[in-house]
Amino acid sequence: MQIAIVLYDRFTALDAVGPYETLGRLPGAETVFVAERTGPVRNETGNLALIADRALDQVPDPDIVVVPGGPGQTPQMDNRVLLDWLRAADATSAWTTSVCTGSLLLAAAGLLDGRRATSHWLALDTLKGFGAEPTGERVVFDGKYVTAAGVSSGIDMGLHLLGRIAGDEHAQAVQLLTEYDPQPPYDAGSPRKAPAHLVAELRAKSRFILG
Amino acid sequence: MQIAIVLYDRFTALDAVGPYETLGRLPGAETVFVAERTGPVRNETGNLALIADRALDQVPDPDIVVVPGGPGQTPQMDNRVLLDWLRAADATSAWTTSVCTGSLLLAAAGLLDGRRATSHWLALDTLKGFGAEPTGERVVFDGKYVTAAGVSSGIDMGLHLLGRIAGDEHAQAVQLLTEYDPQPPYDAGSPRKAPAHLVAELRAKSRFILG
Repeated sequence: MQIAIVLYDRFTALDAVGPYETLGRLPGAETVFVAERTGPVRNETGNLALIADRALDQVPDPDIVVVPGGPGQTPQMDNRVLLDWLRAADATSAWTTSVCTGSLLLAAAGLLDGRRATSHWLALDTLKGFGAEPTGERVVFDGKYVTAAGVSSGIDMGLHLLGRIAGDEHAQAVQLLTEYDPQPPYDAGSPRKAPAHLVAELRAKSRFILG
Repeated sequence: MQIAIVLYDRFTALDAVGPYETLGRLPGAETVFVAERTGPVRNETGNLALIADRALDQVPDPDIVVVPGGPGQTPQMDNRVLLDWLRAADATSAWTTSVCTGSLLLAAAGLLDGRRATSHWLALDTLKGFGAEPTGERVVFDGKYVTAAGVSSGIDMGLHLLGRIAGDEHAQAVQLLTEYDPQPPYDAGSPRKAPAHLVAELRAKSRFILG
């Protein structure tokens, strides 16, 4: 079982590391970070770099594809090399997944047409524009396509998918091992719960935030 | 304001990236990944590498120190260079923090003597052996020392500390931006909640898990 996590310039780190730290604990699986070229890939602030150990063409048929989001996804939506790789990898994948605005890349590759899917809450309208059917859920399964909401939701997605593939017990053990017993100090993690003026402020800046 | 996140061989990625993605969004702050030497630092599986952009001696007086955990922390407990750096950085830091077994490194440096603190649930007894007073809480403040429980708890710690430094509103905006509205598929994230046999299984393997 091979899990490929796709990196590109100005991705968001937690989008990639959340699924890595949960789904990546699938027994017997090898996780590989891939990008157009091997080497360091910087996130949107430029002060974090993850290494892509393989180039896309070295990983032609992963069993699971994970596409993180981040402000850098906008230019990638015109990246033929990446979109062609996503379509080819999807042709043989068991699961094709995304976190945050990573779903816009799947949609741009034509993989979410007419499918129920999700994205960062600021990107749901854009996702709809690409032919998907956005839902307000945190993790959405539609056949083998699994999409998660913004940034931190990749942790939840990883546990959900781990449960489907390896069984509830293994997923629970990973939840216990990573001590995922969330106790945020506020209940402001979704636009339905956060103070309305904060939601409005982020909406006003969404073009800047999403890239 | 400078935030230094310490890397070492066989760290756990989410321990570092959770606080990075929350606390790192402190307005006007620069976050820098540091290690004994600059360059790639591999996590415990070896299939993820974050780059340390600076060596410890290039970052002598960060305002906030973040020490992640991971199986690799055990050999670091005898690493004079790292422990000396932790003591020196702590002498001028505004906040000294850890995630997971990172607290064992703070304790080994003598920084948690008699202080309330926490760690991964499998490491609480070890933490006590180093002179700290472990609590069962997910995030523990004792003066300027902030310690978090296992792996994913660094996200909660980051939001707590962000609220203390930048105010509740900014921390709520970051929670909304990172869509941290946790909905794990199970309620197995702590030894008090997980199935007892899973807790026992991980306890039996704790030496292997903690390194």
